This record gives sequence, C-alpha cells and structure tokens, in this order.
Amino acid sequence: MPESYLFSEVGRRLNEYKRKNPGTEVIRMDIGDVSLPLPEVCLNAMREAVDEMGSSDKFHGYGPEQGYAFLRQAIARNDYLQRGIKTITEDDIFISDGAKSDLGNIGDLFSNDIKVAVCNPGYPVYVDANAIDGRAGIIADSRWRDINYLDCRPENSFEVTLPKNEVDVIYLCSPCNPTGEAMTRSNMKDIVDYALTHKSLIIFDSAYEAFISDPDIPRSIYEIDGAEKCAVEIRSFSKTAGFTGVRCGYTVVPGSLEYPDSDGKIISLRKFWLRRQTTKFNGVGYIVQRAAQSLFTENGQKAIKENIRYYMNNVNMLRDALLTKGYEVYGGVNSPYVWFRSRKYMDSWEMFDRFLEGPHLSSTPGIGFGSAGDGFLRLTGFNSVENTAEAAKRILAL
Amino acid sequence: MPESYLFSEVGRRLNEYKRKNPGTEVIRMDIGDVSLPLPEVCLNAMREAVDEMGSSDKFHGYGPEQGYAFLRQAIARNDYLQRGIKTITEDDIFISDGAKSDLGNIGDLFSNDIKVAVCNPGYPVYVDANAIDGRAGIIADSRWRDINYLDCRPENSFEVTLPKNEVDVIYLCSPCNPTGEAMTRSNMKDIVDYALTHKSLIIFDSAYEAFISDPDIPRSIYEIDGAEKCAVEIRSFSKTAGFTGVRCGYTVVPGSLEYPDSDGKIISLRKFWLRRQTTKFNGVGYIVQRAAQSLFTENGQKAIKENIRYYMNNVNMLRDALLTKGYEVYGGVNSPYVWFRSRKYMDSWEMFDRFLEGPHLSSTPGIGFGSAGDGFLRLTGFNSVENTAEAAKRILAL
Repeated sequence: MPESYLFSEVGRRLNEYKRKNPGTEVIRMDIGDVSLPLPEVCLNAMREAVDEMGSSDKFHGYGPEQGYAFLRQAIARNDYLQRGIKTITEDDIFISDGAKSDLGNIGDLFSNDIKVAVCNPGYPVYVDANAIDGRAGIIADSRWRDINYLDCRPENSFEVTLPKNEVDVIYLCSPCNPTGEAMTRSNMKDIVDYALTHKSLIIFDSAYEAFISDPDIPRSIYEIDGAEKCAVEIRSFSKTAGFTGVRCGYTVVPGSLEYPDSDGKIISLRKFWLRRQTTKFNGVGYIVQRAAQSLFTENGQKAIKENIRYYMNNVNMLRDALLTKGYEVYGGVNSPYVWFRSRKYMDSWEMFDRFLEGPHLSSTPGIGFGSAGDGFLRLTGFNSVENTAEAAKRILAL
Repeated sequence: MPESYLFSEVGRRLNEYKRKNPGTEVIRMDIGDVSLPLPEVCLNAMREAVDEMGSSDKFHGYGPEQGYAFLRQAIARNDYLQRGIKTITEDDIFISDGAKSDLGNIGDLFSNDIKVAVCNPGYPVYVDANAIDGRAGIIADSRWRDINYLDCRPENSFEVTLPKNEVDVIYLCSPCNPTGEAMTRSNMKDIVDYALTHKSLIIFDSAYEAFISDPDIPRSIYEIDGAEKCAVEIRSFSKTAGFTGVRCGYTVVPGSLEYPDSDGKIISLRKFWLRRQTTKFNGVGYIVQRAAQSLFTENGQKAIKENIRYYMNNVNMLRDALLTKGYEVYGGVNSPYVWFRSRKYMDSWEMFDRFLEGPHLSSTPGIGFGSAGDGFLRLTGFNSVENTAEAAKRILAL
C-alpha cells in the first residue's frame, strides 16, 4: 500500500517548498487543526484532576476500559436524550482517545472478506484502515479494487449514492470531511433503509456535528428511525473544544446492533466491541475524561459555541473570497471546511502547487480524499482569525 | 471466543462474592494496579502543560503520531544509550497510550495465516488479541489450537522453551507477568538466535524491567546481540511511575527490522508501523507526554526508585508469608508479582475461591494466563503497605 498517509504527504511537500523558498510565509490551511487554546472550564477541570492524581485518597489508577460513568452519563444525557433521542443510553457509549483510533480499530470486528463501501470523497482513514486490514484489494488510479465508492458530487447536491452491490459496512461522514456539505434527512433515511434491508452496518462519522446550523439537518444518525439497529456513531471533542492535543472522543455502539459471526451465529456488536476494547485498550486517562466532562457544564457549552462561531467566521471569510474570485465553492455553511474547484479543470495536486506558489497557502488536495475529489481543494477554518484574514486577502489578490 | 477478558471475570466473581457476603472486607491483590499517587515532578510537569494548553502562544494541537521528539529523545538517551545500548535511536521509539494498546494493535502488521508462539503462562492479551484477529483457531481446555505455547515451568527454572514448530512471531515477557520470574541472558540469547535463524519476530514485553534488581539479568532485549534485527520491545510507565490512569508507554521498532510482505517483497517494519499509527492513531496527548518526560529528570528517577522500593517491600511481605505457610513460591524478587501453588494440587479457580473465602484476598488464577499456569495464583505488590501487611497477616493466620 502507498507508504504515506495524505497529511504526511502534504507536510512533506510543504517542507520541501519551504526549504527551497526560505523566508516565504506559508499559511497552513490544510490539516484541520484547531488554533484556539482550551476553554477555561477544561483547564480548571484538569487542574483539579491533576491534584487528585497527586493525592493518596483521590488517586485514580486503571479506569473502566469503556470510560468513566460520569462522562458516559453526561454524553448520553446531553448529546442524545436532551435532543430527543431516547434509543441511546450510557451503556452504548465508549470513550476513546479520538475518532481516528475508533474509525481504524473498529475494523477488528469484521472478517477480512466483508464488502466495504465508503463515501467518496471521504476521510482517508476509512479506506486506508481497511487496506491495512486486507479488505481493499489493490489500488489503481486512486481507487481500491475491492472498495465500493459511493460518489458524492456537486452535480447531485452531494447526495450519497446508494451502493450498487451488496455491501456489509458503509462509512459515512456528515457534515462531510472534506466537502463540508451535510447529509439531508432524506438521504440519511435512504441509507438507513438500505442498511436495514441488507443487514449492513453504517459507521457514521459525525465529528463535525456541532458545526451544523441548519435546524433541518440531523446531527446524529439516531434521529433516523431504525438507525439504532444498523449504525455505529463516532464523535470527537477535537474540533468543538480544541481537544486535538488532548485526545478524547467517543463511539456509540447501541445494544440493539446484532450481526452474524462467521458461523452465522447472531452476536451483539456492543459486547464484541467491549471485548475488543478490554483486550486491546486500557481506557482514556482520568484527567482527560474530567476535561471532557467539563464541556457539558453551562460554561463548557458556552465555550464550545464561542469556538464554533470563531471558526465559522473564518471559513466564511475564505468562502466569500473564493466566490468573489469565481471559484465553484461548497461547504463552509454547516461545517468548518470549504471545498472548491476552478471553473476550468485542473487536477488537485496542480491546484495545490498553484495555491502554494501563488498566495503561499497550504491546502489539502481533494484527490487525497478519493477519486470524486479530483480537481478540488479543501481549505480549513481552523486557523487564527488574523491568518485567515490574511489568507482571504491573498486569495482576493490572485 | 470467550466473552470475558480475565480481569473482567475476576471482577465479576469478586462482586458476586461481595453481594452475597456484605460487610466482608476483601483486599484486592488481583489486578496489578498501582496505589501510590503520581510523583510531584509529574504533577508539576502536567500543571505547566495545562497552563500552556490555555495559552494562545503555547497551545499544542495535533502532535506527531509517533510522539514528541522531546520524549523520544529522553527515552533513547536514558533507557538505551546510557545503559550501553547503541543500536536504538529516537527514530525507533513510538510513544503510545500504553503497552496493552500496542501489544494488541501490532497484530495489524501480520497476515492472518502467520504462526504465533506465546510464553505460557503469559499476559492474556498476547493470545486474546490474536484470537480476535483470527490467528488462534478454536479453543479447548484453555489452549487455542493454532497458538504455539512455549511452556515456562518451575521444573525447568521457568526457562522459555524454544518453539517446536516454525513460528513467525514470538511473544515474550520478562520479568514475566504473571510468574514474576525474569529471563536469564542465556535463555534470551537462545530465543534471539532462534528468531534470527528462522526469520521470526520477537515481541518483547518488558513492562516490568524497572523492577529488576539482579545485575546479571538483561533489562532490554537489545542487550542481546542481533536483537535489533528480530525484536520489538514494548514498555510502559504504568507500574514504575503510577501511570495506569494517565496512559503512556512506548514501543521500540528498530529501523533494521525487515520482513517479507505477502508477496515476498522485503519491507521495513518500522515504516509499516508508522503507517499503521498515522492511519489508526493520533498520538498521545501533550500533557501526558510532558508528564512522561519529567520521569527522566533526577527527581523523576528518584521518585521511580522510591515507588519500586515501596512495591517490592510489599511483595516481599507476601512472599515471606506464603513461604512460611509452606506454599511453593516464585517471583517477587525481580518483579512486583508473587506466583505460588499449594504443595497438594488444587486447580486455580478452586485456589481463588479458597483465598477469597478464607483470608478474603482477591487473587488472579494462574489458569487465566495459560494452561501452564494451572494450579497457581498470582498476588500483586501493588497495594498500600497497610493493606499488604494485613493481607500477609491473614495468610499467616490461615
């Protein structure tokens, strides 16, 4: 398989450019890393937890592999029950060190001969993790032979197309990284109905759900009837609360998920995931889980809203600048990413080089997210407002 | 596969006993969880790092998946170079959220049809992770059909026996969890020579190396000539510095490890592990890595030594009490575990029940670590000195 992960390759090209062009001030609009410091409420929760870890009485050693009840309860209540989702309880929540780990590790539950479908374009981990596990076959022209690509293209309003063949597992992402477009309720319902009919499993990556502003767009797959019987949901505190360097997320594996094992015996996916986690994982650190819990307080929720406003303001600046210059622009409304292409076709790496050499902006080439991303670039709202304003200015000066 | 992980099963039986016998004060000598709070030097490092995470200038988002250079350098220098091992550099070190994760995840690098050998008894993760990955076959009488068990028995001074069949991967643990016995240099050399001859890979779990007091016993597999061409080493800060609830360890994958892929092409294991980690992992949190770094300061090293003295004093009390009562006792000299059996055969779960019902001590049944552990119990030095003294008193009163 290709040696390099997409973002490592972007980093490599960027470093090479910098080496050859010393003194050039490149603004990094590629990897979606946050720029705002952690909210005060998190810092305080961590300070308190650090003190506990230094006290004989309050020290915490191994915690439950699934995560502490205090955090799982806060998630079940705030992110599900209070939003009208009654099918999800704390027993279905598994705390993790981030969405990427769970998106990768969940493949441990699948046989090597299952059929996998992914939204195209999509977060590269869906495909790469399956390639490492041996389920992708060989690669040619940015497409793995054994992967079913569900194209999401502007011509079709980025609707996820239904699988043409029978598939066992479907990776979805909404709001979508990289396109920044969110799935509509009816599109989600179509996929859930497909999964229920074909007994497939949906892996729903909603790491960016907090950025959704449109009230008609579901923020959880479990807003769709029957999804608790066919979907796992994976979320993260990385982008909402700036946890990229703290490492915490969670995965929802409803108790009602039942699938046949290789002998045809029906097993509980939640029990199997718990077995996987108790065997290959030792839980998330206590201090980190206390920090995550603090996000569900009033101050925590306020801090998240402020962060989101900040990053959405950034992405709006980029969106406006690109529209002004006549690019074909998507995303940036319900997500912190903007996705665009030139009116005249240019391949993604060529676009990448143009944006690096001209306005000295580092971007992420759409082709890195799958063949349907060809010709596109992704820019991120996760930078400082000052850098983003400068980036927008440079785009306008093109 | 069996639904329950060993320590979950111990916990379940313990809870049932407590429910049926309210008011009984059971002392937990089963799971190897530390009891001392974190060293002051770690707390200070974390407080400083929390402050940094709250500052716009010093905030840290995504770090390198392999770990920060400051920590990898400290490890390479202190744990290898200064102990005379020149073959290991910072490029070979991968920071993880704990030994269990890496011991489990390293299976991602192997085809499903490779032959696996494990020391017997051994940490259950070696076998269970391979069973989840589909390499163990079916289980009968505590033995998985496709696993090669390398028995380590008192009759043979706990020497690891060489594999009888050709094997591709060999899991070793020294000092051994559960027996508490450490491998001799000559036994390690025999296994390294086997691996070099048969082009096998050794996965060397040295999570307890800091507890070794005998200067003749190697603390790293890389003290053996040629090991850098055939061994991965996995370590943890859990037991030495009380990091079980912090979550940090590291894995050494030397650049000189080369193995054929399924097409016979020779590939670098370090490159492949890096690819696995960049795809399915996003690194360890910044605050945690700063805490780990602080362990390599003078105060950090002093704190580790004090912790080890404390736990070794505990295990000595248990060892003495068991010897006084005429049990056949091993371990407890170069490790924080004591491993013992009755002079008259009794199976492990029966022993477990006796120790729970009599002195109200919770232990770990040896059979849970493999068939060669039958009849044994493991007790741990990881409890408070007060609880351990009480446990020793109860044993003496048997």
